[in-house]
Amino acid sequence: MNRLLAISLSIFLSHIFIIAADVASPSDRVRLSVGLDKEGAPVYSVTFDGKTVVNDSHMGFELLDSPSLKSDFEITGQRHDSCDETWRPVWGEESVIRSNYNELLLNLRQRSTGRLVDLRFRVFDDGVGFRYEFPCPQPQLQSFVITDELTEFAIPCDAVAYWIPGDYDSQEFNYTRCRLSEISSKMDEAHVGGPVYPSPFSDTGVQTALMMKYDSGLYVNIHEAALYDYPAMCLDLDDSTMTFRSTLTPYANGDKAVMQTGRSTPWRTIIVSDDAREILASRITLNLNEPCRIEDTSWIRPVKYIGVWWEMITGKSTWHYTDDVTSVAIDQTDYSALKSNGRHGAETSNVMRYIDFAALHGFDAVLVEGWNEGWEDQATSRKYKIFSFTRPYPDFDVKKIRDYAASKGVRIMMHHETGSAVADYERVLDEAFRFMADNSYNSVKGGYIGELLPRGEHHYSQAMVNHYQYVLEKAADYHIMYNAHEAVRPTGVSRTWPNLIGNESARGSEYHAFSGIKPGHTAILPFTRLVGGPMDYTPGLFENNISRYNPYSSAWVNTTLASQLSLYVTMASPLQMAADLPETYERFMDAFQFIKDVALDWDRSVYLEAEPMEYVTVARKAKNSDNWFVGSTGGAEARKSRLDFSFLPQGRKYRATIYRDGKNAHYRTAPQDYIIETRTVDSRTRLTLPVAAGGGYAISLTPVK
Amino acid sequence: MNRLLAISLSIFLSHIFIIAADVASPSDRVRLSVGLDKEGAPVYSVTFDGKTVVNDSHMGFELLDSPSLKSDFEITGQRHDSCDETWRPVWGEESVIRSNYNELLLNLRQRSTGRLVDLRFRVFDDGVGFRYEFPCPQPQLQSFVITDELTEFAIPCDAVAYWIPGDYDSQEFNYTRCRLSEISSKMDEAHVGGPVYPSPFSDTGVQTALMMKYDSGLYVNIHEAALYDYPAMCLDLDDSTMTFRSTLTPYANGDKAVMQTGRSTPWRTIIVSDDAREILASRITLNLNEPCRIEDTSWIRPVKYIGVWWEMITGKSTWHYTDDVTSVAIDQTDYSALKSNGRHGAETSNVMRYIDFAALHGFDAVLVEGWNEGWEDQATSRKYKIFSFTRPYPDFDVKKIRDYAASKGVRIMMHHETGSAVADYERVLDEAFRFMADNSYNSVKGGYIGELLPRGEHHYSQAMVNHYQYVLEKAADYHIMYNAHEAVRPTGVSRTWPNLIGNESARGSEYHAFSGIKPGHTAILPFTRLVGGPMDYTPGLFENNISRYNPYSSAWVNTTLASQLSLYVTMASPLQMAADLPETYERFMDAFQFIKDVALDWDRSVYLEAEPMEYVTVARKAKNSDNWFVGSTGGAEARKSRLDFSFLPQGRKYRATIYRDGKNAHYRTAPQDYIIETRTVDSRTRLTLPVAAGGGYAISLTPVK
Repeated sequence: MNRLLAISLSIFLSHIFIIAADVASPSDRVRLSVGLDKEGAPVYSVTFDGKTVVNDSHMGFELLDSPSLKSDFEITGQRHDSCDETWRPVWGEESVIRSNYNELLLNLRQRSTGRLVDLRFRVFDDGVGFRYEFPCPQPQLQSFVITDELTEFAIPCDAVAYWIPGDYDSQEFNYTRCRLSEISSKMDEAHVGGPVYPSPFSDTGVQTALMMKYDSGLYVNIHEAALYDYPAMCLDLDDSTMTFRSTLTPYANGDKAVMQTGRSTPWRTIIVSDDAREILASRITLNLNEPCRIEDTSWIRPVKYIGVWWEMITGKSTWHYTDDVTSVAIDQTDYSALKSNGRHGAETSNVMRYIDFAALHGFDAVLVEGWNEGWEDQATSRKYKIFSFTRPYPDFDVKKIRDYAASKGVRIMMHHETGSAVADYERVLDEAFRFMADNSYNSVKGGYIGELLPRGEHHYSQAMVNHYQYVLEKAADYHIMYNAHEAVRPTGVSRTWPNLIGNESARGSEYHAFSGIKPGHTAILPFTRLVGGPMDYTPGLFENNISRYNPYSSAWVNTTLASQLSLYVTMASPLQMAADLPETYERFMDAFQFIKDVALDWDRSVYLEAEPMEYVTVARKAKNSDNWFVGSTGGAEARKSRLDFSFLPQGRKYRATIYRDGKNAHYRTAPQDYIIETRTVDSRTRLTLPVAAGGGYAISLTPVK
Repeated sequence: MNRLLAISLSIFLSHIFIIAADVASPSDRVRLSVGLDKEGAPVYSVTFDGKTVVNDSHMGFELLDSPSLKSDFEITGQRHDSCDETWRPVWGEESVIRSNYNELLLNLRQRSTGRLVDLRFRVFDDGVGFRYEFPCPQPQLQSFVITDELTEFAIPCDAVAYWIPGDYDSQEFNYTRCRLSEISSKMDEAHVGGPVYPSPFSDTGVQTALMMKYDSGLYVNIHEAALYDYPAMCLDLDDSTMTFRSTLTPYANGDKAVMQTGRSTPWRTIIVSDDAREILASRITLNLNEPCRIEDTSWIRPVKYIGVWWEMITGKSTWHYTDDVTSVAIDQTDYSALKSNGRHGAETSNVMRYIDFAALHGFDAVLVEGWNEGWEDQATSRKYKIFSFTRPYPDFDVKKIRDYAASKGVRIMMHHETGSAVADYERVLDEAFRFMADNSYNSVKGGYIGELLPRGEHHYSQAMVNHYQYVLEKAADYHIMYNAHEAVRPTGVSRTWPNLIGNESARGSEYHAFSGIKPGHTAILPFTRLVGGPMDYTPGLFENNISRYNPYSSAWVNTTLASQLSLYVTMASPLQMAADLPETYERFMDAFQFIKDVALDWDRSVYLEAEPMEYVTVARKAKNSDNWFVGSTGGAEARKSRLDFSFLPQGRKYRATIYRDGKNAHYRTAPQDYIIETRTVDSRTRLTLPVAAGGGYAISLTPVK
């Protein structure tokens, strides 16, 4: 908008629009109102079919050494726009995604300072996205430091929330389900068995994506999209008013973000429906991200993999090579003078055994952790250099393994555990990626365990968000697919950078071998963590009794075997692991067949049943194939799943192979009680399938010729 | 020492040496005692000719989440050693340096925890160096976080100190001279006209190198040597006991250092003499650094340079290219669409004018600042990307300037102002250095103005010390000579990495155009800042009245012209600038001749007169030449310098060209009153030369054939 127009609109609008502007979604189900209160503070609210989603909620910022940007505004203009377009992701739950919204751009000017802020709202039929934009140039504002973002989400009732504790460094918590008013009293319990170095900020703080269910029947999800060069957002609840306010991950000194005019915040998203399945089907997060920035994406391919990993997680073998020393110094310790502890997982012949298994069963890749120098004392993480990313342990023969894998048509997946020594990792990153290219690695699992250097910095701060993005883009330069553990949770960035094929950023399967995962966990993750992108959840745990691997462990996998299979469908990801040991799979080859068969990339996804923390049932059509797969994951209680096959094309018959819980199946007492049955189905078929406590089922459907 | 020996020594020593071990310097002038007090805390003291230098002073550490390492120790062994060797620096004040000391390694074991700490002391005839070493392996200690270093320096009297305020981000202060007991009352005044973003930590905090003069006649200097992977040390005075304690630059969260067994702290140094000249002649700092790590040093050469710089400092021209915008975004702002403000210093034809001047007068290089995109809004420094290091402004023609300089036998000196956006700088560093190599740059001036990202970090923290070292070593990979401004002050690192040809890290000449430099400044810097290595002080300011360059400036250069010449000798550095404008030098070509003639590298240096903040007179023999140069810089008061030429070889006659203050010379009223006279001298010559207030003199001596 040019300046004259802005000024004339200002005069005009100051009378008409000072109170509110309204935007309806294309179908009119979602409506957003926005305006200024009597202090000139921006306020917005959202309804769905007339029901309140978010009550009047303020927006704004506190700045360092500068007046707040939260009130004293006037509206100087507004622009309405709309969009209805489709686009094709490189991989995902659908091959074509529609983005359909009405948009409002509201121009604000702070009277006393002359500073300008634009608010951009996009209203979809399944929710709202909005962000702050700082117009450039403007004489009174250039670069500045945000000390608080004041975005509110005023919840209109004492909703049921499905939440994990707000934290600046980890999302690896079990979920808690309770009323908003109960959060503070449940906070201590919610931390039990959580990450080693939590960074809580409030006893009413929770993380996004936050899932809620209102008494009005609405399902509401709050998250963010397109998080770049800004800290990750948590939410802090004022439980006297049921109003959440954004809490940004701070720098060590408490400041939140450096910002410049010409830039925007991430989108704040509110997904809403009266049908829980629509939350899962929403594509708002991806639609609020920018189109793909990678020109040639031919090197980005779904990856089904196994790994020299679960044997270390369970304590059967070790990441570290030697017990001779308790302290090592990268570039100084001479490993050739040290002897193996005899339990080192990433030992050449052991790796070759995994390669054989991968090749035999059609896996794309073998992850090998603990291949590189530095694991002996990594747990302390108080060094600037913790790991080498180019020097293997003496018993890991890079060239032999590379050549053997190539001869078998299998890739080795690189592992870059940084121990959160991020400065060193950035310094050696080119060298590390060149080493990968030289040795035929095309994907990397990253890791950020432990406390960050510099001291006091947090995993989800602006600096670290920039770090992860730097690594992701550098990986793209090298045609490397990237999957970072302990990094910031995703926000749809994989649309723009589809080499981000996975992330952890939640409590993954590994916790079955640590402090445990509660049943229902995989029935809430699709409503929360997966809203931002796929998770490297590492399913496929067939052996529940971890003491079979490690006599000192009393850990137990709290799911049925059939439920493990369901996750390959319910937890959509182009990256899927079969996490258990080859020798375990060999005991259950009939069930293992599903993991071998299941697709990784999809033309279509149909959510059939969904209730947070209770169950998720989804059918997906494999990309460029007529095969369908169904997965259903349950919660703590046994239930019946009523399966309607009307998602299938009419008139066509399919052979269904059903992997389901057996009669006595229960995650504690009989997890390996499963039944595999086949039958012919078509679009008119209706089945009722039992789901055990901690159970689930998986179905593969192939057209009958 | 093997373990059995340690144990047997432990039994033996626990009776004899529990109280003290003593080490004398080779000539016995300096004596060090060390022992444990009744709490088992390590204590040391130092004497010079029997006079106390440092009274009983404690040593130790506070650790994070772990008991202190400061008491409850027993001595388990000690080893005595000695060294007398000479070595040749790549450049410096002498071509041969002698290192001669007696050493004590004291092994300590903390009784309650079993943790081990070694104390290594080296006792020279002109002082002491000591450091903490953490033996590896030891079962009870591996990686840890130091929250405080407790090293004390107990001063035995209310000494006169020459100091600048303790600070975590800047050393750009004027010096204050006062008794220790007066420091706290002078602290506010000491900050006047100081750096924009000071980070004081105490009203009795001072920086090292700290110079002191005792009533006993001793001159004592406290600093550190070989600062690597550790925060820089300041000193905090308990002025009830006159005891200084180390204050390490913290991380943003207050922690100080991450440390690992197998590593050591930097050396803490105490240089002492009853003759101030011996402080300047001491080589303890260099001797406590490791030998050169660069194999081929042929590309490291002294550099005499001019620069497109003073015209920006004085406000005559600008670093930034355009006034069209007030905010720019690197990689986004299209400068080709913007027009020059007409006052841009780094404009091609202006640079070529400097090249002509450099070539005509035999300079090696021309520094050009403001050549690159990003200066329009750099002052705010609140962006992750502030500058491009590869994209020139539209009016700076890289290739034309490169080729023109080459045709004239002159190098262009690169300028990398980072604005303290260090993460971005590290990410583009290879690209930036490749750009230099591609365009024939072989030296770079770095800069770290403004506040650091991540927010709350400090310029002298462990993380930043590592950063500077990273850049220095990467520069060596590219055969680039490095000179960083606003970086941590040097600690003799240039012995090991002689491509560190300069540093700022103190209040440099530029402050003459800012808030001013007090007379006497250059008579204290050799006792303080230069103890760690050469300074890019940028002398040669012939025009005192800055309003001649910029009518809006009221700044005045508080020295005489003759004094400016003296600095090329008194401020030893392989990197020397003639900082003033070519057109100014053209007005004083007779005096400028000295800058053209003076050497940059030396065979020998003889300190003739010295008193902190009063005067420094030094004679130096040019390396591989028979020429000598003498410089004498004074303080606020006029004086007579009694110059004894006995440093010259006997029986040889020299033609002396003397550049000295004229009869009416005074830094305020007649700074440009100078006299150039020639005479023949030999080793028996004695001269009395007048030095004006704020004055000095310079002499070049060439053998008479």
